[in-house]
Amino acid sequence: MSFTVEQRGNLNTSSYRLFFKDADGKYISPFHDIPMYADEEQTLFNMVVEVPRWTNAKMEIATKEALNPIKQDVKKGKVRYVANVFPHKGYIWNYGAIPQTWEDPRHKDADTGCCGDNDPMDVCEIGTKVCSRGEVVKVKVLGVLAMIDEGETDWKVIAINIEDPEARSLNSISDVQRLKPGYLEATVDWFTRYKVPDGKPENHFAFDGQFRDKDFAVETIRNTHSFWKALVSRQSDAVGGLNCKNMRVSSGESPYRCSEAEAKAVLDKTSPCGSDEPVPSTVHQWFYYERKK
Amino acid sequence: MSFTVEQRGNLNTSSYRLFFKDADGKYISPFHDIPMYADEEQTLFNMVVEVPRWTNAKMEIATKEALNPIKQDVKKGKVRYVANVFPHKGYIWNYGAIPQTWEDPRHKDADTGCCGDNDPMDVCEIGTKVCSRGEVVKVKVLGVLAMIDEGETDWKVIAINIEDPEARSLNSISDVQRLKPGYLEATVDWFTRYKVPDGKPENHFAFDGQFRDKDFAVETIRNTHSFWKALVSRQSDAVGGLNCKNMRVSSGESPYRCSEAEAKAVLDKTSPCGSDEPVPSTVHQWFYYERKK
Repeated sequence: MSFTVEQRGNLNTSSYRLFFKDADGKYISPFHDIPMYADEEQTLFNMVVEVPRWTNAKMEIATKEALNPIKQDVKKGKVRYVANVFPHKGYIWNYGAIPQTWEDPRHKDADTGCCGDNDPMDVCEIGTKVCSRGEVVKVKVLGVLAMIDEGETDWKVIAINIEDPEARSLNSISDVQRLKPGYLEATVDWFTRYKVPDGKPENHFAFDGQFRDKDFAVETIRNTHSFWKALVSRQSDAVGGLNCKNMRVSSGESPYRCSEAEAKAVLDKTSPCGSDEPVPSTVHQWFYYERKK
Repeated sequence: MSFTVEQRGNLNTSSYRLFFKDADGKYISPFHDIPMYADEEQTLFNMVVEVPRWTNAKMEIATKEALNPIKQDVKKGKVRYVANVFPHKGYIWNYGAIPQTWEDPRHKDADTGCCGDNDPMDVCEIGTKVCSRGEVVKVKVLGVLAMIDEGETDWKVIAINIEDPEARSLNSISDVQRLKPGYLEATVDWFTRYKVPDGKPENHFAFDGQFRDKDFAVETIRNTHSFWKALVSRQSDAVGGLNCKNMRVSSGESPYRCSEAEAKAVLDKTSPCGSDEPVPSTVHQWFYYERKK
């Protein structure tokens, strides 16, 4: 299954939107219409790339907008960029989400003791290739980190693009430790400190900041898939204005399924592509502070 | 004094050249014609930016070509990019050279016990701004690292752009340690390991890898300036094909001074600007190996 993207608005402004289309050119939602599994055997997962490695713009699937395009997060009227906390530069993986998953904010996780953050599950793709924004890649799941962000559970799946030259050698968290020494520690450090330059506290983690292995990660993804199923079938009420409009979930399973005409109407209301803005130069500075040992 | 640049050939190919012009639009050599000192009091230095922070292309002043444009280093017929040795991305400072300096390969340094590497002195500019290639910035020198690269002394000056918001607070190596914790250690780590992915050994350092402070650094720069003076006045023979053609050294001091017509003739022989090539995608991968503790 292949997907393409179509830009509206201007890059690096609040008008920017990246809409998704299926192989027939029909508009779809990357949150609801891209299958979670990437293979028949249900061992591989799709990942929607929101942020290419090395970049700073905090791009994310707009869960509350119709058809859920990717947009740049806005805070106090300004588009948001993550700071470069020394020694990191931008996001240190290709970062994105697993479609058809939902971290239910009313479900308290037995392990973390915290509820979900109302978003799809996040993925850090650790391959060598820099992906492009909106790319849908097939990944093999290797493990998961349980970040606690202001009292909410925010899982970070560690995965590898199956087309990566090293994908065959990477099958577990310990393979990552062996073949990419320092990367997992850098990952914990990155998530711990990335919001500090914005005046937020350090993040914490369940399991003492240890990664859980593949089986645990897959089980967790499957749980969030069942939460998503309940959401999209209206067995769970959409929380905080989530938009569940979709094109491909079977109509028996989702009352939110809409017609092609409705989808086109959504696009007709968007801003056309204009002139993109450059990334502000301040985004490139490094932020320093002593790490706690 | 202000300078501009003019491109010839195509970026990311061996034909790329970046020539320098003075405020009157006359072609000059960045090696010989840009003054070393940036102020009357001779406390600030000019730096010619060869490599902007975060980038990988190994760009350098072509010491052996007439007018010494910036070009990309070529090895075995291929343009060269430095590898990203984890956790670093590209060059971690704005990297460049101090004009009118020369590390004389026939002069054995008393401290390092090694001769010079036949290049101008290298600078790591640690400010927040990402400079552009060919920019000439005024810097305050803070210290120096004595790298030994295959038996040659290759000084790495640590400096800060005087227009940096933090420039007033940074006056010594210990200021860097206090305000940018980890940066100097990362700098030593970067220079130690950056050639390992290309099959070269780790680099070593005089003074046990410790940085020398500002006064030592300035003294060292002044020594290399006197070597350059001897070079450009033909008291030292140009070694290994260095090109000393210049436009602004007083003719009493340099037999290599040439006319505007000669400079234009140099430019007339270059390739015109064509279509730039993209950076190859392999340049973006990370290279991992365990650091020695």
